[in-house]
Amino acid sequence: MTVAPIIALDIMGGDEGASVTVAAAALARMRYPETRFRLYGDEAVIEDALRKYPALKAESQIIHTDVRVLGTDKPSQVLRSARKSSIGLAVGAVKAGEAHAAVSAGNTGALMALAKIGLKTMPGIDRPALAALLPTMKSDVVMLDLGANAECDDENLSQFAVMGACFARIVLGIDTPSVAILNIGEEDLKGTDDHKDAAEALRSAKLDFTFAGFIEGDKIGRGEVDVIVSDGFSGNIALKSIEGTARLVVELLRRAFRANFWSILGFVMSKRVLSSLRAHLDPNAHNGAVFLGLNGVVVKSHGSANVEGFANAIGVAHDLVADGIQERIATDLARFQAQRHAPAAEQQAAE
Amino acid sequence: MTVAPIIALDIMGGDEGASVTVAAAALARMRYPETRFRLYGDEAVIEDALRKYPALKAESQIIHTDVRVLGTDKPSQVLRSARKSSIGLAVGAVKAGEAHAAVSAGNTGALMALAKIGLKTMPGIDRPALAALLPTMKSDVVMLDLGANAECDDENLSQFAVMGACFARIVLGIDTPSVAILNIGEEDLKGTDDHKDAAEALRSAKLDFTFAGFIEGDKIGRGEVDVIVSDGFSGNIALKSIEGTARLVVELLRRAFRANFWSILGFVMSKRVLSSLRAHLDPNAHNGAVFLGLNGVVVKSHGSANVEGFANAIGVAHDLVADGIQERIATDLARFQAQRHAPAAEQQAAE
Repeated sequence: MTVAPIIALDIMGGDEGASVTVAAAALARMRYPETRFRLYGDEAVIEDALRKYPALKAESQIIHTDVRVLGTDKPSQVLRSARKSSIGLAVGAVKAGEAHAAVSAGNTGALMALAKIGLKTMPGIDRPALAALLPTMKSDVVMLDLGANAECDDENLSQFAVMGACFARIVLGIDTPSVAILNIGEEDLKGTDDHKDAAEALRSAKLDFTFAGFIEGDKIGRGEVDVIVSDGFSGNIALKSIEGTARLVVELLRRAFRANFWSILGFVMSKRVLSSLRAHLDPNAHNGAVFLGLNGVVVKSHGSANVEGFANAIGVAHDLVADGIQERIATDLARFQAQRHAPAAEQQAAE
Repeated sequence: MTVAPIIALDIMGGDEGASVTVAAAALARMRYPETRFRLYGDEAVIEDALRKYPALKAESQIIHTDVRVLGTDKPSQVLRSARKSSIGLAVGAVKAGEAHAAVSAGNTGALMALAKIGLKTMPGIDRPALAALLPTMKSDVVMLDLGANAECDDENLSQFAVMGACFARIVLGIDTPSVAILNIGEEDLKGTDDHKDAAEALRSAKLDFTFAGFIEGDKIGRGEVDVIVSDGFSGNIALKSIEGTARLVVELLRRAFRANFWSILGFVMSKRVLSSLRAHLDPNAHNGAVFLGLNGVVVKSHGSANVEGFANAIGVAHDLVADGIQERIATDLARFQAQRHAPAAEQQAAE
C-alpha cells in the first residue's frame, strides 16, 4: 500500500493508561517511522505524557474526551455513553476513514460491541472473530475465535478458517499456512455436525492454505499447525485453560523452589532458565488480539500490557494495515464462496 | 454397605496390558483386603502374570476371552465383536450383577459405547458424563463432562452438577462441595441459553452443595471450587489444553536447563523440585475417570497408567462402590427433580 498507516489509539485504556500507551506509541513510532497516530483520551493527561516524546507529539493528533469506559463496566450498561469514550472515538475514526486501525487495552466487551456496531461485518462474513497468537513448542499459532461468539455454525467456522489463514500469512509470514479445526477427537466422525460440515467445506476448498483436519486440545501447544479454528466458546475455554495452567505450573515451581536450602540454591542457578521460560510464555510478546471480519482493523491489547506489550499490539495493527488484511480476506472469501457455489467449474479451472 | 466390593478388571487394556493391570490388582488387594476381583482376558497371559501374586490368584476368578479391542480401533467398527472382548465382558459382569464395578485402561470410545449400551442410563439421567479429578493449586477438582457428549442442554448440565457433587463427596471427602459451571465469563449474562438455564436451576436448588456460579478456564487450576460442570465438548478441550500446556511448560523447562553449564548445574540442584512438580501433576496420581449416570460403576484408566496409576483407578472404583455412589446420585436426583416440579412446597418445607 502506498498510504502510510494511520492508527487510532485509545490512550486511556489498560491498567496503567497513558503512561504505558503513550510510551508504547513512541516506541512503535521508532519501529514504523511512516506510521501516524491519533491519540484519544483526556487531553491534559495525554499532553503530560507526551512531554517526554516531542517527536511523537509533533506528528500526532490529540482528540479529547472526558468519557472513559472502565475495565469493570458491563458493555450492555455503558454502550450508549461509550461511543464518546476514548475507545468509541478510536473505533469511530476507523469508521469515518480517519484511521486505518484502532488499538485499545480497554474493556474487551465494550471494544467488541462498539467495533461490531460501528464498523459492521465485511460482506460475506456472518460474524467477526477474535484472533490471537499463542506460544507453542515451535513457532506461534493463530487461534480464532477466542470468545466473540458463544455459538458458531459450520459457515462461521469456515469463514474463520479463511480469515485466520490471511492473518497467519501476515503475522507469521507463512505463504501456505496449515489450518485445523479444534475438536474432541481427530477422526472425521468426531464433534458436532457443524464441525463435520466445516471440515468438509475446507477439505474441498482450493485456497492458499492446507486443511489439516481436526486437532485436539493437547496438541495446541505442539505447533504442528499454523491456524486453529474453533467456536468462540471452546476457543475461549482453551485459551484460558492454557493461561491458567501455565500460571499454575510456574506457581508450583516457585513454591517448590522455596522448599529448602538446596532448592533455593538451585533456584539461583536456574534464574536465567526460568526467565527464558517466562519470556517464551510472556503474554506481552504475543500481545494484540485482532477482531477479524469487520470493515476495519481493530486490535485488543491485554489490559496489563507493558510498554513493549502495547507497542507489539500497535505493531500487529501496523502489519495488518500495511499488508492489506482487509483486501486479502475479501479476495479469499470471494474465491471460497465461488468454489462452493460452482465447485465443478472452479475445479476444472484449477486443473 | 455390607457386601464386599467385587470389581471386574479388563486385564488386556492399556499400553502394557497384564504386566501392569495384574500387578495393580495385587497392589489394590493389599489396600482394600475385602475386595474381590474378576479378571477378564487371555487366560494363559493372566495365569502367567498371576504367578507372582498367589494370594491374588487364590481369591480371583479368571474369565477367558480371545477377543481384544485395540486402542486404535474405532468404536463404530468394533462394537459388535467388542461385547465378547475383555472390556465388553467386564462391563457385562456389572450388568449381570456379578460385579459392582468395571475398570479398564483400554479403548475409551469402546468402553463408553459398551457401558452406555450395556448398562443404560440411570432413571432421571438423560446422558451419562465422564468425570475425573484434576490437580489444582489447592486440592483436586472434579470435572465433568470430559467428552462423553459433544452437545449438552441445560438439563444435562444440571444433572452433571448433581452427579459431580455426589462424586466429590466420596472422592474428595467434602460434605458440601461447591459447584461451578465452566463458561466464557463470570457474569450471569455470559454463555449460551443452556448455561444460563442450568445456572438458574442450580441456583434455586436446595441440595447438599453450594452453587458458585460460572467459572472461566483460567480459574480451573486455582482450586477455588470442588466441582466444575461443562458440556463434553468444552470440558474435553479444557482437559486436553491443560494436559498439553503442562507438558509444554515442562518440555520448555527441560530444554532451557540444557542451555549451558550454569543451567545444567541449576538443573542438578533443582532435581527434587522438578520431581515434586512432576508428582503434583502426575496423571497416575489422578488416574481413574468415571462414567457417571449409568446403572453401574465404570472406571476408565489412562492407557499409559503404571501399576500405581491403575491401582488408583481400581481405588476409585472401590470407593464409589463402598460409599454407594449409585444410591447417592439416585437420592439427590429425586430431590432435585421434586424441587423443580414443586418449588413452592419444597421451599416451605425448608423454612
